[in-house]
Amino acid sequence: MTRDDALRSDAQDPLAPLREQFALPEGKIYLDGNSLGAQPKATPERVRRAIEQEWGTDLIESWNKAGWIDAPRRLGDRLAPLIGARSGEVLVADSTSINLYKVLHAALSLQQGQRKKVVSERSNFPTDLYIADSVVRAHGGELVLVDSPDEIPALLDEHCAVLMLTHVHYRTGRMHDMALLTRWAQQAGALTVWDLAHSAGAVPVDLLGAAADFAVGCGYKYLNGGPGAPAFVWVHPRHLGQSFQPLMGWLGHESPFAFTPNYRPAVGIQQYQCGTPVVLSLAALECGLAVFEQAQALGGMAALRRKSLALTDAFMAEVEARVPQARIVTPREHAFRGSQVSLALNAPLEDAAYAVMQALIARGVVGDYRAGDPARLDAEPHLLRFGFTPLYTRFVDVHDAVTQLADVLAREAWRAPEFQKKNKVT
Amino acid sequence: MTRDDALRSDAQDPLAPLREQFALPEGKIYLDGNSLGAQPKATPERVRRAIEQEWGTDLIESWNKAGWIDAPRRLGDRLAPLIGARSGEVLVADSTSINLYKVLHAALSLQQGQRKKVVSERSNFPTDLYIADSVVRAHGGELVLVDSPDEIPALLDEHCAVLMLTHVHYRTGRMHDMALLTRWAQQAGALTVWDLAHSAGAVPVDLLGAAADFAVGCGYKYLNGGPGAPAFVWVHPRHLGQSFQPLMGWLGHESPFAFTPNYRPAVGIQQYQCGTPVVLSLAALECGLAVFEQAQALGGMAALRRKSLALTDAFMAEVEARVPQARIVTPREHAFRGSQVSLALNAPLEDAAYAVMQALIARGVVGDYRAGDPARLDAEPHLLRFGFTPLYTRFVDVHDAVTQLADVLAREAWRAPEFQKKNKVT
Repeated sequence: MTRDDALRSDAQDPLAPLREQFALPEGKIYLDGNSLGAQPKATPERVRRAIEQEWGTDLIESWNKAGWIDAPRRLGDRLAPLIGARSGEVLVADSTSINLYKVLHAALSLQQGQRKKVVSERSNFPTDLYIADSVVRAHGGELVLVDSPDEIPALLDEHCAVLMLTHVHYRTGRMHDMALLTRWAQQAGALTVWDLAHSAGAVPVDLLGAAADFAVGCGYKYLNGGPGAPAFVWVHPRHLGQSFQPLMGWLGHESPFAFTPNYRPAVGIQQYQCGTPVVLSLAALECGLAVFEQAQALGGMAALRRKSLALTDAFMAEVEARVPQARIVTPREHAFRGSQVSLALNAPLEDAAYAVMQALIARGVVGDYRAGDPARLDAEPHLLRFGFTPLYTRFVDVHDAVTQLADVLAREAWRAPEFQKKNKVT
Repeated sequence: MTRDDALRSDAQDPLAPLREQFALPEGKIYLDGNSLGAQPKATPERVRRAIEQEWGTDLIESWNKAGWIDAPRRLGDRLAPLIGARSGEVLVADSTSINLYKVLHAALSLQQGQRKKVVSERSNFPTDLYIADSVVRAHGGELVLVDSPDEIPALLDEHCAVLMLTHVHYRTGRMHDMALLTRWAQQAGALTVWDLAHSAGAVPVDLLGAAADFAVGCGYKYLNGGPGAPAFVWVHPRHLGQSFQPLMGWLGHESPFAFTPNYRPAVGIQQYQCGTPVVLSLAALECGLAVFEQAQALGGMAALRRKSLALTDAFMAEVEARVPQARIVTPREHAFRGSQVSLALNAPLEDAAYAVMQALIARGVVGDYRAGDPARLDAEPHLLRFGFTPLYTRFVDVHDAVTQLADVLAREAWRAPEFQKKNKVT
């Protein structure tokens, strides 16, 4: 792919106008939307209005007039189509970790102590494992971790209460077959909990089609809700009213403003709310979701998926052609690929990944680094992660990013002292 | 107090300049800062900067450059002086309900199953009771509720694990003697959990002076952090590293960016963090805390308390002199009074409180209504609540609010049909 080829692809891209919805900084190629999505141009004005009009002028009246009280479900309704859920099934609230805590407790409570094993991947995003650890402790259960997805089927037995997976892996970008694994789990009598942190807004998700049980996900990655945006939680309608979650706060009560001393859970997904909604951050997330509604007219998630695969295909091909020092960790097969590409560096550069990423960032190509554990069975490598957000990433960005990566490695620009110190938190 | 007297008091008020820090709407007398604090004028610009500069331009770099990652502790350090805590002891995160869940679990874990009873007030804010109910279920314990504070001492026995109280009562504005009750509880071997939702920024609080054990509180009431602002949590240093809280998220890990599969709690209050900080809402709360730093030069919480008592004294005196249909529910004794005054209506108007409040709001006097349960032992009345925020409430507001209240009752303006329907959530 020449640079002109890339520019031609961009010119022919039906989704290209969506990039105009984002305030991307000049001179940066931002390939880290899988960590923090870019800022929609509409966000500052929407949040200003929430602050000055809804809060500043209308004050307490906005709980009714501006619909603050319903915001978690209203945003959930707007998010639902992106994950194959229906209106009334999704709630936007709290963090992914806290929502995971709710649904894992709910799932284990549904198993009524008959099954107590939670199965997951050892390389799952750590907060998922920490939260699962906490929940299995509370239920006297056990967290069983596999080193490879291939080990999962054998663990779906009569002791397995829950199969908890992150749909698209945060390190490798590998995507699980949600429908298949859900079916296998349910055939064994287990329930499924899906973490959609790297899926929602990135790849088509069909929770109802897969008949999944529970899902949670993140508002600040591909949904572009802003740093620390509230997360979401989905529960299959068959479990609503049956399952119990222990963060029994007043806004999960069937009648919070009756101020009764006894908890009676609300009907439906509202029961998964706990405290007061974070109104200002919800207003920001609204703008992220609105872009997907604009994308609907241009083909929606199916079109976004086509572009995402074209971008990651192109990136992989360019890396293979131009960066002999790197190898591709993310699956080539489309069915197993999310919307990111992770690279590892070949010997003798295995440990240079951090410095290489810093050198790239200094040149305006923003991806991120994730340390691996070479001592593990699978000799987990250090990774360069590149996220491709079809809403705003261009083919020319793919081309230019690889040019910079090839140059950083060819010139050994990453050896400069300022790129060595691991003092960054992300 | 004539209106001129009130204006004279305002002219002599050393704290009067602080009102200029708030964007209060013209023509409203806002006496509901105990529910939602007013908007600091600095907030829109601060949040705009967080959106456009920190997020939009600097993107992922802001986790380091703008200090997003430390914001929960940085804000905690700024909040600490308002509650008698030290730097490093307070974390701003999640909701009050969720923080209460953390500390109640921590407190019960410290009791190691030897004591399992949590004592609280039946009329405590419901979310506190719901969360306590959830936590005692998890520990096989019991929630014991008193109808009057007088019953508390008898319950502080060898079975009592935790005394959980809201320092200033949300309905009555009655304030507990934190130091005394903490001493009594601890003498009996119990731990104390204080909800400071109606205290932080409203009355002086001295957690360390009282040697309290745990505290939580709200960011959107007297701290003026904005609707749904993150809440805070404090743990006495003697319990840090000893206590266990079950919302074990990645940012409570001692080394979150090592991405290890096993949870190791961070040292200190950081262990009470769970997920990613809600950055935009934290930026708004910063502006609320900044006003208290300005107040420091004018006498700080001691001066704010003097003014708060002068305001509530004046309001009580005016109501007594001019509103024979109402009686004062909030304690007259300063030592037992927060920064609000609650009124009940005398027979035969007991049930008119909702309509009276709506009529007041229609005239620009904004308080709120809290339904009571007349069937209770103490015949809990319906209440008109008025919050007095010494940062921005004036003596002339007190005077004019009572004038309107007296007029609404004298003319029976509250009987208009539009004030009858209870369709508001707050």
